[in-house]
Amino acid sequence: MKTLIVYAHPEPDSLNGSLKDLAVSTLEGAGHEVRVSDLYAMNWKAAVDAADYGPDASSPLKVALDSGRAFESGRLTPDVRAEQEKLLWADTIVFQFPLWWYTMPAILKGWVDRVFTYRFAYGVGVHDETRYGERFGEGTLAGRKALLSVTVGGPASHYEARGINGPIDDLLFPVHHGILYYPGIESLPPFVLYGSDRMTPERYEEAAEAWRERLLTLDSTDPIPYRRQNFGDYELPSLHLRPGLEPKGRTGFALHLRDA
Amino acid sequence: MKTLIVYAHPEPDSLNGSLKDLAVSTLEGAGHEVRVSDLYAMNWKAAVDAADYGPDASSPLKVALDSGRAFESGRLTPDVRAEQEKLLWADTIVFQFPLWWYTMPAILKGWVDRVFTYRFAYGVGVHDETRYGERFGEGTLAGRKALLSVTVGGPASHYEARGINGPIDDLLFPVHHGILYYPGIESLPPFVLYGSDRMTPERYEEAAEAWRERLLTLDSTDPIPYRRQNFGDYELPSLHLRPGLEPKGRTGFALHLRDA
Repeated sequence: MKTLIVYAHPEPDSLNGSLKDLAVSTLEGAGHEVRVSDLYAMNWKAAVDAADYGPDASSPLKVALDSGRAFESGRLTPDVRAEQEKLLWADTIVFQFPLWWYTMPAILKGWVDRVFTYRFAYGVGVHDETRYGERFGEGTLAGRKALLSVTVGGPASHYEARGINGPIDDLLFPVHHGILYYPGIESLPPFVLYGSDRMTPERYEEAAEAWRERLLTLDSTDPIPYRRQNFGDYELPSLHLRPGLEPKGRTGFALHLRDA
Repeated sequence: MKTLIVYAHPEPDSLNGSLKDLAVSTLEGAGHEVRVSDLYAMNWKAAVDAADYGPDASSPLKVALDSGRAFESGRLTPDVRAEQEKLLWADTIVFQFPLWWYTMPAILKGWVDRVFTYRFAYGVGVHDETRYGERFGEGTLAGRKALLSVTVGGPASHYEARGINGPIDDLLFPVHHGILYYPGIESLPPFVLYGSDRMTPERYEEAAEAWRERLLTLDSTDPIPYRRQNFGDYELPSLHLRPGLEPKGRTGFALHLRDA
């Protein structure tokens, strides 16, 4: 495997830092190639602006079109080009981050906003009567797998089906489906470590063992079975799921899962 | 009203810039006080790091505890203190942003990550057998209302109940409930402008009229009726919604709505 680890925590001596280090040593120990994008160490620029597109920035700025032109002309900034190259190199991408306010830290969202440009991650493929671009299962990054490794301060029960925060699968749907599956990446079930605010050495050892086990079984783990966009499950142009495809009573984000 | 507008778009001459300007002129024209946090113009720092907490940063850095200590000692950075003061001043907060990858731009997430510190937005109130802190309906910012004004590139149908992106109410739940309601802010139903990639002067005029109408009726608009945490709807310590409170068949994020 060729694994890119995208890591977003400001403190190397943190739970997230330890899990990232463990991922590197575990995967390399098993003979895999590993590259790491340590966003804080790289001083990653989080905010999209005209400087990202150099001479391809129009005035007024048009984020989608300008990013697509800069991508096609090879004139995106070197930091963004390097991340796109790493994504094309990798067959597996691990994201290591703490859940802050129910989603990823700003620096990691800024990695998505700047790296997932038009013509690279969206605005790819033909739009006609039968296809709405190459996305949700197709696209530039098709064939790759991702794994979110997320630390969560609160207890698991708060993130269960009836928990006050909402189900963790629904909170992560906009990342798994909206960000990753859109340009073609399939996500494995996430590795979620709850109670990170109250970690003990004993609990860390258990978590580390579980994390090693997940890392060493990536190849045999089935991805979350999202429905592909262009293969009959959705009506065009509404992109509504066709009636009756889902099990009775299923609603919400889970509509977009194929049946097991 | 005292309205804070938090605005996140890199181009002043954009749809988001126009809607922000229209909000200022409409509200001021109606006699309300308005302040604007223009995150790009302020060169807002998006990434949480040790520099945010000055002498209150411990080593290794502990984001929650250190931010709480810096908050309590009055030593958060001036940019963060200014935003907290604006939030305390305001009775209404309008967020104007484009939906990028199904959520807010990184610069706005970084405003949340840095301004919503421990002891200010979370870690507030007593935790005992009957209360799990002051949050979800109580908290530092209780009594305030928020309104998300969001531009969306794609068409509305893709964000309807069966749309491929998932329902817009579910995509915004982590913001409305997880970010805003947590420290006590009630959200009004969002103003969502679809098809922003294909805006025409005629469509803009319609949208502007609808936006003015929303802004001039904020006081008479009911907020999204989320359930309060500490008033009997949730079991402690699981914070599961008590059985049977919801209408038959309701699941997912919508469990946390009170019945109309």
